[in-house]
Amino acid sequence: MSDSKNLKNLYGVILAGGSGTRFWPLSREMSPKQLLKVFGTESLIWHTIKRILPLVPQEQVYIVSNSKLAVEIRTNLITGKEPFDKVGYLVEPEARNTAPAIGLAALHIESINPDAVMFVLPSDHIIGNPEDFLSSLKHAASLAQAGYLVTLGLKPTRPETGFGYIKVGDPLAEHSTAHPAYIVDRFVEKPDKETAEQYLQSGEYFWNSGMFIFKAKTILDEIKRLMPGLHNTLLRFKELSLDEWGSEKAKDIFCEAESTSIDYGILEKSSNVAVIPVDLDWSDVGSLTAIGDFLEKDGAGNVIVGNVIDAESKNSIIYGEDRLVATLGLEDMIVIDTHDATLVCPRNRAQDVRKIVDVLKAKNAEEYLVHRTMHRPWGCYTLLERGPGFKIKIIEVKPGARLSLQMHHHRSEHWVVISGTARVTRGEEVFNVHVNESTFIPPSTMHRLENPGMIPLKIIEVQNGEYLEEDDIVRTEDDYARR
Amino acid sequence: MSDSKNLKNLYGVILAGGSGTRFWPLSREMSPKQLLKVFGTESLIWHTIKRILPLVPQEQVYIVSNSKLAVEIRTNLITGKEPFDKVGYLVEPEARNTAPAIGLAALHIESINPDAVMFVLPSDHIIGNPEDFLSSLKHAASLAQAGYLVTLGLKPTRPETGFGYIKVGDPLAEHSTAHPAYIVDRFVEKPDKETAEQYLQSGEYFWNSGMFIFKAKTILDEIKRLMPGLHNTLLRFKELSLDEWGSEKAKDIFCEAESTSIDYGILEKSSNVAVIPVDLDWSDVGSLTAIGDFLEKDGAGNVIVGNVIDAESKNSIIYGEDRLVATLGLEDMIVIDTHDATLVCPRNRAQDVRKIVDVLKAKNAEEYLVHRTMHRPWGCYTLLERGPGFKIKIIEVKPGARLSLQMHHHRSEHWVVISGTARVTRGEEVFNVHVNESTFIPPSTMHRLENPGMIPLKIIEVQNGEYLEEDDIVRTEDDYARR
Repeated sequence: MSDSKNLKNLYGVILAGGSGTRFWPLSREMSPKQLLKVFGTESLIWHTIKRILPLVPQEQVYIVSNSKLAVEIRTNLITGKEPFDKVGYLVEPEARNTAPAIGLAALHIESINPDAVMFVLPSDHIIGNPEDFLSSLKHAASLAQAGYLVTLGLKPTRPETGFGYIKVGDPLAEHSTAHPAYIVDRFVEKPDKETAEQYLQSGEYFWNSGMFIFKAKTILDEIKRLMPGLHNTLLRFKELSLDEWGSEKAKDIFCEAESTSIDYGILEKSSNVAVIPVDLDWSDVGSLTAIGDFLEKDGAGNVIVGNVIDAESKNSIIYGEDRLVATLGLEDMIVIDTHDATLVCPRNRAQDVRKIVDVLKAKNAEEYLVHRTMHRPWGCYTLLERGPGFKIKIIEVKPGARLSLQMHHHRSEHWVVISGTARVTRGEEVFNVHVNESTFIPPSTMHRLENPGMIPLKIIEVQNGEYLEEDDIVRTEDDYARR
Repeated sequence: MSDSKNLKNLYGVILAGGSGTRFWPLSREMSPKQLLKVFGTESLIWHTIKRILPLVPQEQVYIVSNSKLAVEIRTNLITGKEPFDKVGYLVEPEARNTAPAIGLAALHIESINPDAVMFVLPSDHIIGNPEDFLSSLKHAASLAQAGYLVTLGLKPTRPETGFGYIKVGDPLAEHSTAHPAYIVDRFVEKPDKETAEQYLQSGEYFWNSGMFIFKAKTILDEIKRLMPGLHNTLLRFKELSLDEWGSEKAKDIFCEAESTSIDYGILEKSSNVAVIPVDLDWSDVGSLTAIGDFLEKDGAGNVIVGNVIDAESKNSIIYGEDRLVATLGLEDMIVIDTHDATLVCPRNRAQDVRKIVDVLKAKNAEEYLVHRTMHRPWGCYTLLERGPGFKIKIIEVKPGARLSLQMHHHRSEHWVVISGTARVTRGEEVFNVHVNESTFIPPSTMHRLENPGMIPLKIIEVQNGEYLEEDDIVRTEDDYARR
């Protein structure tokens, strides 16, 4: 089996539906953990794709996510320093855990290439040694070609009680010292501390990484055998075009599928499951304490980022942006400051941030849903203030870029240019607005904002109206194919 | 001595030059502790004046402060629910501690009324039992009439090491059980813990309250005798009008005066100093922990104010405004969140907030100087954002109020009305701007913003220009007599 043949059949399936609530307030429902740039200059999902590109062409990478989030992920990926604009998006009609999501991906990929091997990967992990990882993926791909459902088992480095484990069984026929591989004896749930210690000592247990490699056909066959209900649901998707996956109709069908993980629904019950032990510098970036693990510390063990003035703190994570954060005498604390929300908790309570998020979610609070600054393919906007009947934004448009030709039913907009030059389309007119000039867009008027210049265009937009939500927008032309 | 005669001669001197750095970020250089409304609906200085009004007519109350701060204090006092618009302002040319400040006040008041008795009071304390306090002041005034320099000695309630103490000597001739009064044996510096315990046990030591009562003439005579240098400085102020006290000339003269407290310079050396023991529900509101002492606690001992979501914290102070603050599992912590800055420290480190402020002061940081929202006699403004060449504010004008007729050399202003109706003067034109309409003020153009309506006027102001500081303003007419 040549490498080139391998490549032709290899597909990436990036599971990116997660909301990453444990990273609030850095993450939001519409800016989840996989989009965070905390751990580098690009997002975690960008790095996840970058990491597998030596094995998988960009065109064969699919992101599985919900329709709203897919828009944000696309914006993130096409605006990266190395833009990924050829990856595909598979819309999960509804979050139903990993078995239905992987089933959908397998259905689509198998229809394109019956010999396809899928690398199913979480979108939000960190891997420090990508070459070892790629070598394991290659090995896994050859086992997958041979019909195995392959999992990567991470060599445990501590008696972790927060992960599930995989107990290895007999070596496979394909096992070698250079390329170890075992049949899976069993999957085990998150252990207690004592059991986790035993697992660590034994050398027979590995962390379940959530990374799976199998042929699309193999997993579909196993779904048919072990989850016939899900298989029936998937068959009904054959009648739908990809564009219809986000529809209400698709949702109705998909909601009949059992909400189950691929581990529980298939892997624990199947007999041809293999595990490849891997020793990776890996993290699932499971809570805000990961910031303390991956970012540079000062002499007192603090990670300090942003506009922070600290006196005499120790072993703390103090993470801000441009707002001033002052800390004094903290020990083992976490302070996370964003434009619209601040979190303070002891380091050992980071896992419980979910409790805060649950309250916010119940209130449908904006601080749970979105960030103040939202990135768009053409640039970004920042909400400065909102109040009864008005909303104020700073809008930044990249040189040469333009927003869609659009209209709002319920609001008018005042634009004041504070940097650069704007080309404005308003109804039938097209005119330029320079620094320190302003213009006005009445309601129900088609308009477009464009940066014809060489430097970023910045405008202040004051919106007035009875209804000021982002969904009051009718787009008729868009350079970025948005609707 | 009749009460009415007493009243005629009684003057309030409120020392209000303090910067209240220990209350940062709630306090700022231009919004110091005495202006905080944290402990009630009005500021601490408003309450300080309100408290003595049964004894001192408003016209006989003088605020001693620096010229910039005096403007802010006046705005605060004339916009209170009961506006104090008749109090006088004495500008300290430079902060030189209490002896020179009190000397200046005595000089002025004695020139008006040679029989004047001065109640010299800090501007930023809390007194829970104002009637007991007034009764002590009356008693003190009669002793002051008899020539004593009177201090109020607070009955200690704990072995406090942060205050100076006064040891009482023999009872005065004027002493009675109902109205106790003693000669002062001596002033003592802040004691160590053990000594403080002894002071508390002995019953002979009282806290030095910083509240003094004497005739203007008496203190001037004692200054002449004990601080002849200061007396010479004061004499040179006789040649200056009150308006000139803020001038460079006054500053040059005043800086020759020794920077000394009235305690050290006069009271510790004088022989006719009396102390009246008082048992007041008093606080000097010395640090942020005072919030925990005076505001209502929840079942877990937390004081929680503002847009806060807390889970499982104990004995903590979590004080915010409308930005979201989320806290989880804090114990004995302080979190203070304001629009532009957040402070986090353990409760027992509140005294050290000064360390943060020192850093900010050295950087001349805006977060040390001013709040995002600044109150003005006509309403208020809030800075939303500033960047290179632009500044965005929300301006709120009270019904019937108007800003000064003014001009800026270096900036133009775009105004968008978001609520109410604006009457705009621009050069020779006067016109109304309604909700959702905008106008533009070019540089070097006289203009005025007015609210002719019955509801608050709110506008968004976008300033453009090379220089956007608040001091680029030329006022030609002002309803509030500002320059």
